[in-house]
Amino acid sequence: MGDFLGYHCSVCKAEYPPTQVMYTCPLDGGNLDVVLDIKQLKQKYHVSDITSRKETSLWRYLPLLPVPLPPAEGTPLGAAGYTPVYQPLHLAEKLGMSRLWVKDESRNPTASFKDRASAVVVARAMQIGAKVIVTASTGNAGAALAGMAAAAGQKAVIFAPRSAPPAKVAQLLVYGAQVILVDGNYDQAFDLTIEASREFGWYCRNTGYNPFTAEGKKTAALEIWDQLRLADSTVTGRPLTVFVSVGDGNIISGIHKGFRDLEALGWLGQMPRLIGVQAEGSAAVANAFHAGSEIIQPVQAQTIADSISVDLPRDGVRAVRAASQTGGTYVTVKDAEILAAIADLGRVGIFAEPAGSTALAGLKKALAQGIVKPDDPVVVMNTGSGLKDVRAAMQAVREAPVIEPSMSALKKHLESVVP
Amino acid sequence: MGDFLGYHCSVCKAEYPPTQVMYTCPLDGGNLDVVLDIKQLKQKYHVSDITSRKETSLWRYLPLLPVPLPPAEGTPLGAAGYTPVYQPLHLAEKLGMSRLWVKDESRNPTASFKDRASAVVVARAMQIGAKVIVTASTGNAGAALAGMAAAAGQKAVIFAPRSAPPAKVAQLLVYGAQVILVDGNYDQAFDLTIEASREFGWYCRNTGYNPFTAEGKKTAALEIWDQLRLADSTVTGRPLTVFVSVGDGNIISGIHKGFRDLEALGWLGQMPRLIGVQAEGSAAVANAFHAGSEIIQPVQAQTIADSISVDLPRDGVRAVRAASQTGGTYVTVKDAEILAAIADLGRVGIFAEPAGSTALAGLKKALAQGIVKPDDPVVVMNTGSGLKDVRAAMQAVREAPVIEPSMSALKKHLESVVP
Repeated sequence: MGDFLGYHCSVCKAEYPPTQVMYTCPLDGGNLDVVLDIKQLKQKYHVSDITSRKETSLWRYLPLLPVPLPPAEGTPLGAAGYTPVYQPLHLAEKLGMSRLWVKDESRNPTASFKDRASAVVVARAMQIGAKVIVTASTGNAGAALAGMAAAAGQKAVIFAPRSAPPAKVAQLLVYGAQVILVDGNYDQAFDLTIEASREFGWYCRNTGYNPFTAEGKKTAALEIWDQLRLADSTVTGRPLTVFVSVGDGNIISGIHKGFRDLEALGWLGQMPRLIGVQAEGSAAVANAFHAGSEIIQPVQAQTIADSISVDLPRDGVRAVRAASQTGGTYVTVKDAEILAAIADLGRVGIFAEPAGSTALAGLKKALAQGIVKPDDPVVVMNTGSGLKDVRAAMQAVREAPVIEPSMSALKKHLESVVP
Repeated sequence: MGDFLGYHCSVCKAEYPPTQVMYTCPLDGGNLDVVLDIKQLKQKYHVSDITSRKETSLWRYLPLLPVPLPPAEGTPLGAAGYTPVYQPLHLAEKLGMSRLWVKDESRNPTASFKDRASAVVVARAMQIGAKVIVTASTGNAGAALAGMAAAAGQKAVIFAPRSAPPAKVAQLLVYGAQVILVDGNYDQAFDLTIEASREFGWYCRNTGYNPFTAEGKKTAALEIWDQLRLADSTVTGRPLTVFVSVGDGNIISGIHKGFRDLEALGWLGQMPRLIGVQAEGSAAVANAFHAGSEIIQPVQAQTIADSISVDLPRDGVRAVRAASQTGGTYVTVKDAEILAAIADLGRVGIFAEPAGSTALAGLKKALAQGIVKPDDPVVVMNTGSGLKDVRAAMQAVREAPVIEPSMSALKKHLESVVP
């Protein structure tokens, strides 16, 4: 467990001790950063104390987390994170790149990046003795909370808008969560969870509201640093560039927090450049970034990438800074580019949901625009499994042909296909 | 790479050198076992040479496999297998058991057990210089071949019956496989792949036809042995019992092969008992087992567990022996029990497809019938992800309630729910 000093408001800079606040800044509603005792951590640990730990889960980075280890050994909660970093040579070649990695978050227990946030929030809930954890979600975040809570024997309540796809709701129910469909939109479900958490003393996991979600998400940065040996500067010359799809902004701000913690510890040779990728139809953060502003104007979001389809990003300010403070930027991509990137990743054996392939679509655009150079070292985050949204996958590929079950029909078909 | 001596027919005992045959026994069509040079392996390795290897994939067991290492580092092919073994205490408690583990194969790259077979078949294809790998499949095996072949830059052709669910076909297409829908049933697609492989020199992966599929699947046994430290006899007293769902029989016979190899090496204290679990509506192997016969009579399969819905099991003889030669047995379960087991696994954070939860349904039945004792050490295999069949998951749970987006509606709802 890292030495947890308290919170720091990302907007007004107010500081709070660990027990005074729980969610956003009481003064201005700003997102709170968790503050660790970097000085003490520096004295206690060397890089190798972290990188030589034997855990192959996000708990490998427990010394840098503001929670104690939950009793999670031998459960999916104990096995979240530490996802593989692939080096897809054929894809790199196709893009003309020399150093390309894909971090595959679909291999988390509930098949998305969100397990990281939920794992740390569940650990925090157990630490403070919360009996019930609640969140608003239509998809991955809810599944992650439901799965991680089930693994720990904790009770989860999920509020989803009535329009949520029945298939996604089924995953929540299978994990034994109490699911309540709200006859309204996501924002109304969000507000109701906050009211309910106040009224019933439930612990609220809402993204961009609970400061521990970003602490969970920062473990992806710690893994990139560990797996690519950024402390030993395996990646030299131009800085590493990390492409992340952005919806509410909490993943990119969590990753930024991870790299900031490492930098503060003096364990990071060079701060990676963070490039946020949004769908053109859901680009509130990109809009603010390119306007040079930290004021996030809501949009009427419309994109095939449902996991990053967000009217009002709940962690927009920090998401803008993740790019602006690292020499990064924002790019936006069309739904057709997102679908094409699903097929690109599929061809090297990685099945991504639209929000996952969005990051690769952004890389392709950034290459075309000269924002990254072909020999820049680049990590693309695939944030979720294509199995979460097979309907989108069906739009990414051409239909399969139908033939009679005979060799003559097969031969005729093969001759008709241009190889 | 293990020392690969050749093949041994499971029916007539004929032996063949490595280059003489490729698939089933030319004399009687029996499934071929791969024969390793156990004597030489014994001289070359000690247990700790295997269990101390640093790979966290099925390639950890390369010394015991009949293939060379494929150029797969940094790809999903290199990252298949070595899935977590969970110890779900709440589920064990509910069942009154003291030593229960679940091996979660849904965390393979394409989210099912079948990646093991496909990984080893792809390695074999690369070794023998095959340009194209073909298989008949409606689901997991095809996805696994498509994904593993894509990871290796190999070409895959998948024949699926026209009735295959479009969502499953989409996964194959995303991986870039050439998918051909056959206007006929699975058996016709199966036969066509065999003809096509003869005619075009394609390498055929078909389950129960290609002897390397069982070699891939045996790695699950090697992992159980390694992860539960069966060499050091952590599990003492009554033998370990492993529950596996059975369709065509190739998974249970592959697991049996793994334990047989370990036994031959003298590295296994006690042979685990293998218990096959079939759906009542698809019980061809269980029928043969209980008739004391090795003659497998086809059935008209009908079960919600599509991955084990099989009219004519292609590896039935060895599947019968996996139970009969280990003191195991077969149990059959109803679809309703399979659905209930999805919910049981979900409540500890494991989302299984019906064929995956079938093994747990079998354990529950075996406990009720006294076939296993509450303090027996038991491993249940979850063979695939619930995300593969969300429609079944929806049948496993009750519908979520809908409320107005207000605290008063929420309170009214909560009061109406018996906690």
